Amino acid sequence: MDRIRRYPELASGHRADLDAVLDAAAVGTLATVVDGMPWVVPMLYARDGDRIVLHGSTGAGALRHVAAGAPSAFSVTMLDGIVVADTLFDSTANYRSAVVRGCLTGFSGDEAVSALDLLSDSLIPGRSAEVRTNLKKELAATLAMALPIEPGCWTVKVRDAPPPAPSTDSGGWAGVVPLRTVAGEPVPAPWVAGGTPPPESVRQLVLM
Amino acid sequence: MDRIRRYPELASGHRADLDAVLDAAAVGTLATVVDGMPWVVPMLYARDGDRIVLHGSTGAGALRHVAAGAPSAFSVTMLDGIVVADTLFDSTANYRSAVVRGCLTGFSGDEAVSALDLLSDSLIPGRSAEVRTNLKKELAATLAMALPIEPGCWTVKVRDAPPPAPSTDSGGWAGVVPLRTVAGEPVPAPWVAGGTPPPESVRQLVLM
Repeated sequence: MDRIRRYPELASGHRADLDAVLDAAAVGTLATVVDGMPWVVPMLYARDGDRIVLHGSTGAGALRHVAAGAPSAFSVTMLDGIVVADTLFDSTANYRSAVVRGCLTGFSGDEAVSALDLLSDSLIPGRSAEVRTNLKKELAATLAMALPIEPGCWTVKVRDAPPPAPSTDSGGWAGVVPLRTVAGEPVPAPWVAGGTPPPESVRQLVLM
Repeated sequence: MDRIRRYPELASGHRADLDAVLDAAAVGTLATVVDGMPWVVPMLYARDGDRIVLHGSTGAGALRHVAAGAPSAFSVTMLDGIVVADTLFDSTANYRSAVVRGCLTGFSGDEAVSALDLLSDSLIPGRSAEVRTNLKKELAATLAMALPIEPGCWTVKVRDAPPPAPSTDSGGWAGVVPLRTVAGEPVPAPWVAGGTPPPESVRQLVLM
């Protein structure tokens, strides 16, 4: 793991902490360099052991550039709370964040089939068992990519704490307003017949 | 605004849509190029008219590089729902995302004082009026930066729709599981005396 220059109390060198952060989110930001300039795009992703699986359209030019091995950085951030201190200076946020650096590789065939199923099941656990698998023409339109998780090529930082204690207690309130993401009632598509129950995968998603 | 090559139905050329996305989130990902490699960091931010205000520690080397005018891209993404289609291929996410490209500039003095107040009030609306302003030593430790929002240098994409309609109706359920971020009960810091009421800013934050 990289040396963390700032706020070393927030960084972790434990791979399990990286995995926990990566597994808790569904969307991240992929960054690369195109013609010397920074290029970023939000992407759905899933962790598959020692790699991050991504997908995109085969028609997207910059993605093809990335899939061809350009150095990339994939960043995931979750805002977990607003940290309200005695002062503006000490007010901050609780968060979990991870950055994984490396070169993406594109892949196809059976490896792509299972990676895309994994990606779907990461977003909607159990969904791939409820519907048909991807058709050949769907696979042909999809760019499956993986970013390896290699030692020394990732950073994970977590802040999960009260505000810093003031040097002189003002007697005022300080603390944390926790934030969390919740799922609402599933909204059926317009063509779905009234009374059609959501599948088990969707019912489980709402309970998560 | 840039030409959007993929999924043009999702992109907007309206500056008001960009502002709405930027104003709805509190954390984004700043990307730049350091020694030819992509470099990313999550950052709290606020929109201040035609610029994005960021801050960091003056001790952070890469941030100083960015503040010195390196080309940057700032990316904001909110995941608004899981789109469950008849097929894995058509399943996706509803989201709002924005990317603003440009060169950051650092600033100090009175401009930094008001920008940092704005940043605090964006995270905790009304907070700057409840506490003292930043001290000189706090300002000296803080790198205030701004990324201009210029025509042709931003992209905003929103997906807020049901799944694509299937070519043949399977009779199964399809739809959207909406996601939203909610604030929980404020948690007082360990040294705060029992019964101390949270300030108005925190009470409002919980209601948002």
